[in-house]
Amino acid sequence: MKLYNYFRSSAAFRVRIALNLKGLEYEYVSKALLKNEHRAADYLALNPEGLIPALAVDDTVITQSLAIVEYLDEVHPQPPLLPADPLARAQVRSMALAIACDIHPLNNLRVLNHVRRLGQNDDGVNAWYRHWVSEGFRGLEQQVAKHSSARRYCFGDSLSLADVCLAPQMYNARRFDCDLTPFPTLVAVSTHLETLPAFDAARPEVQPDAR
Amino acid sequence: MKLYNYFRSSAAFRVRIALNLKGLEYEYVSKALLKNEHRAADYLALNPEGLIPALAVDDTVITQSLAIVEYLDEVHPQPPLLPADPLARAQVRSMALAIACDIHPLNNLRVLNHVRRLGQNDDGVNAWYRHWVSEGFRGLEQQVAKHSSARRYCFGDSLSLADVCLAPQMYNARRFDCDLTPFPTLVAVSTHLETLPAFDAARPEVQPDAR
Repeated sequence: MKLYNYFRSSAAFRVRIALNLKGLEYEYVSKALLKNEHRAADYLALNPEGLIPALAVDDTVITQSLAIVEYLDEVHPQPPLLPADPLARAQVRSMALAIACDIHPLNNLRVLNHVRRLGQNDDGVNAWYRHWVSEGFRGLEQQVAKHSSARRYCFGDSLSLADVCLAPQMYNARRFDCDLTPFPTLVAVSTHLETLPAFDAARPEVQPDAR
Repeated sequence: MKLYNYFRSSAAFRVRIALNLKGLEYEYVSKALLKNEHRAADYLALNPEGLIPALAVDDTVITQSLAIVEYLDEVHPQPPLLPADPLARAQVRSMALAIACDIHPLNNLRVLNHVRRLGQNDDGVNAWYRHWVSEGFRGLEQQVAKHSSARRYCFGDSLSLADVCLAPQMYNARRFDCDLTPFPTLVAVSTHLETLPAFDAARPEVQPDAR
């Protein structure tokens, strides 16, 4: 498998965590967002969305990080990233999608660049970023506080798709100096997740294109 | 089941289509976004995200439209909204997420209101809306053109989660006068979907709170 990747992409970070958790080898193909390599013709031929990440499995390219992670979970079921019970699966997916739909897409590089083109300076862009983290984390804090058994994982006492999404979002929230004091449960869970080798090895700064 | 709903919510529209496809009865509970009913204490107690839709199944509330639709598909598998093959499932989820992550969240009411607060007038807000539809539909057009058998459905020749997401997004694109000429496959598929009773009955203007 080839992962079209960029060290700083939060969505790619999710996929790296999932690949590591499943113990799967992959080829790391860097597409530097700042150099617009994800908008070059060769990459658009593979992924017409022009976004990172994409996973090539033989001749098939899967786009969208959550579609990739669900695929990996279906084909390589150990360790499972979703519980067995349908209502529990739904709760985990709700948490993952609260990040993947309602925080991250508002704050990725292309949107920040667009907000800048609307006349916002650095302070304005940072305020935009922090606003959507704060909006999204406010609800998620309550959901995770309700469902986490011991503030080690988002749901119950085992790893899930929600954790795969939380760790990269928390990493980015710190990078943008978001105020995390209203979100003690999310901070506690993230702090535990960072101790896990699969998460540690997926960090942006240890990827080959970060150097 | 109770669906916390708003006639104009594109995400709620997806869930209404899925409930109709599965032939499931539900109680329609309207939360008027324009009156901020989704931010009232009684609703936040059920859904701390403060977003529409949410589905209450007995005492459990499921948030996030795609988590709800995947739940409905797991518990009520006929007709299936995902193919059986894992790579095919991944392609369908990619299309659905291309809409649910990379178009819709940038264009929902709270974001448009925020863009207005940054100093954009009606023209600026409409330009923002059309920009993200155009960006997202450009990639999706190619994906659907590649995978649709007869331009009746997004993937192959049967209904899927991708169709459940496309129809509401196309409805909204028309409402905001987006230029659809570059997306003939998406228009053809949507035109077919509109003929299906489950989609027709889920349209915003025929919901009880639209009157």
